[in-house]
Amino acid sequence: MRVVALAGGVGGAKLAAGLQAALPPGDLSVVVNTADDFDPWGLRVCPDLDTVMYTLAGLANTETGWGVRDESFDALSMLSAYGEDAWFRLGDRDLATHVLRTQRLRAGARLTEVTVGLAGALGVRNTLLPMCDEPVSTVLKTPAGLLEFQEYFVRRRQRDEVLGVELRGIEDARVTEEVSHAVNGAGAIIFCPSNPVVSIAPILAVPGMRELLANSPAPKVAVSPIVGGRALKGPADRMLDSLGYEVSVTGVARMYEGLLDGFVMDRADEGEEAGVSALGMRVLATDAVMRDEEDRERLAREVLDLCRELGAP
Amino acid sequence: MRVVALAGGVGGAKLAAGLQAALPPGDLSVVVNTADDFDPWGLRVCPDLDTVMYTLAGLANTETGWGVRDESFDALSMLSAYGEDAWFRLGDRDLATHVLRTQRLRAGARLTEVTVGLAGALGVRNTLLPMCDEPVSTVLKTPAGLLEFQEYFVRRRQRDEVLGVELRGIEDARVTEEVSHAVNGAGAIIFCPSNPVVSIAPILAVPGMRELLANSPAPKVAVSPIVGGRALKGPADRMLDSLGYEVSVTGVARMYEGLLDGFVMDRADEGEEAGVSALGMRVLATDAVMRDEEDRERLAREVLDLCRELGAP
Repeated sequence: MRVVALAGGVGGAKLAAGLQAALPPGDLSVVVNTADDFDPWGLRVCPDLDTVMYTLAGLANTETGWGVRDESFDALSMLSAYGEDAWFRLGDRDLATHVLRTQRLRAGARLTEVTVGLAGALGVRNTLLPMCDEPVSTVLKTPAGLLEFQEYFVRRRQRDEVLGVELRGIEDARVTEEVSHAVNGAGAIIFCPSNPVVSIAPILAVPGMRELLANSPAPKVAVSPIVGGRALKGPADRMLDSLGYEVSVTGVARMYEGLLDGFVMDRADEGEEAGVSALGMRVLATDAVMRDEEDRERLAREVLDLCRELGAP
Repeated sequence: MRVVALAGGVGGAKLAAGLQAALPPGDLSVVVNTADDFDPWGLRVCPDLDTVMYTLAGLANTETGWGVRDESFDALSMLSAYGEDAWFRLGDRDLATHVLRTQRLRAGARLTEVTVGLAGALGVRNTLLPMCDEPVSTVLKTPAGLLEFQEYFVRRRQRDEVLGVELRGIEDARVTEEVSHAVNGAGAIIFCPSNPVVSIAPILAVPGMRELLANSPAPKVAVSPIVGGRALKGPADRMLDSLGYEVSVTGVARMYEGLLDGFVMDRADEGEEAGVSALGMRVLATDAVMRDEEDRERLAREVLDLCRELGAP
């Protein structure tokens, strides 16, 4: 069964790794949010793509969830010596990724081609795809003014209240042939437990993406990033709240209403089963927290089983 | 006394460091060869500028003569993991220099501005100037075909016979205002013991540079890069030979005929004093080998004394 997973950063990477472990090599395509990409020091950095790539390549720093294992930060300390404000923790190994990506993009390659090339060179045997080739950038409206996503997320450590989300450039984005091909060939489509506002929503906002997914006959299942009424990691819960969404499993499910056939939640949220079922989704309540590799693969297998119950081949 | 030094890489950097130690801060301007600049992975690398900058900033790796002290090579090993041919030993700290330079050049700054900014940020209190702002690239004719300079120098370890030297782009280069200002304000002009063919010759080949130097009333003194009939470092001796120059102190002096008032050679070459004198140059035979910092400063002081004997203020 060919599977497409939609993913953001750390949470998405974990489930993607579980799916990679559960599926035969080559059967997984991960479509990754690129709306938080940015260009520190003129280098194209794609934080979510890199997190998923390093995770699938077995190179990720499992303590932080992002970045490369056994990383050094000597280039960054030299940038500081030059008087640069080095708030973005750019590792030396990670830097190689950005340097190559930037070089290839400047030479005219599409981000999709660059991504497939980099992931392949690192030995990833599944397909990693950016949500689109065009640059999109998430700008957040906060009481401190408009903030670029990484500035909000890394530099200001998510301390600002998010009052609005703008996806600059999204109107010029297009679903790529590669994403279209992957979705059309998919037997199941899985929404990873990523931030629904700034990770999954940008993917769905690529013009044509929602229709592409809706038109696929494959069952579509989401895994909740909210467990026990809170985000497992990151600011998703506060963001949902300040943007007027209900901070709950049901609130998240409602954001995907009309798109999903199934919804996976943690047992901590079993009380919301009826509310989510009422949205027309088959619910699976299980242990949805991925603490280690074993958890990842187990959860992935449960999600795949739910997809099969819903008609996946 | 304001001093201008013309320099290539390691040998030039050593004498420049000696001059920096011998002169009051701010009195030295080093005009550096940029004809061996190149763009690995899309990053603008200026090997000679960087060698001189790291040396003057006290950051140089004194064992190799090039690169940064206490350097790591993690980005390079990651580039290798991506399947890149990592023959150019790009260190992590060094990489920060290239990333910043590339970013600033792309933003429209001139190489001179970028260089002055980087050197200043590292605490260099003298002026570091590229020979020009325009890109120039040295291409060598060899039995193995045309080779870019760094490919010949680093990748192929100078094993090819050099049959010709082409300076691509030199016809579009211009003497910068900063170099012109430094030379016009100089009380002495010193040719460092750098390769006369691929380090000093490109500087002199910048259209207008030779005239600018010739028109300066300041005494001009060169320090021989040939000692005892051999290059102290690098392929200068073999290069001179294969290009049809005499491999000797006199051979080098003859390349600068008409430009120089004085010539500093090692005592090992005292036998050539008459030959060099016959070219109209005052000769100083001394210990011209710079083994340590003390040697650098002593040689610099001797060179400055010779300049004063020749009329420098």
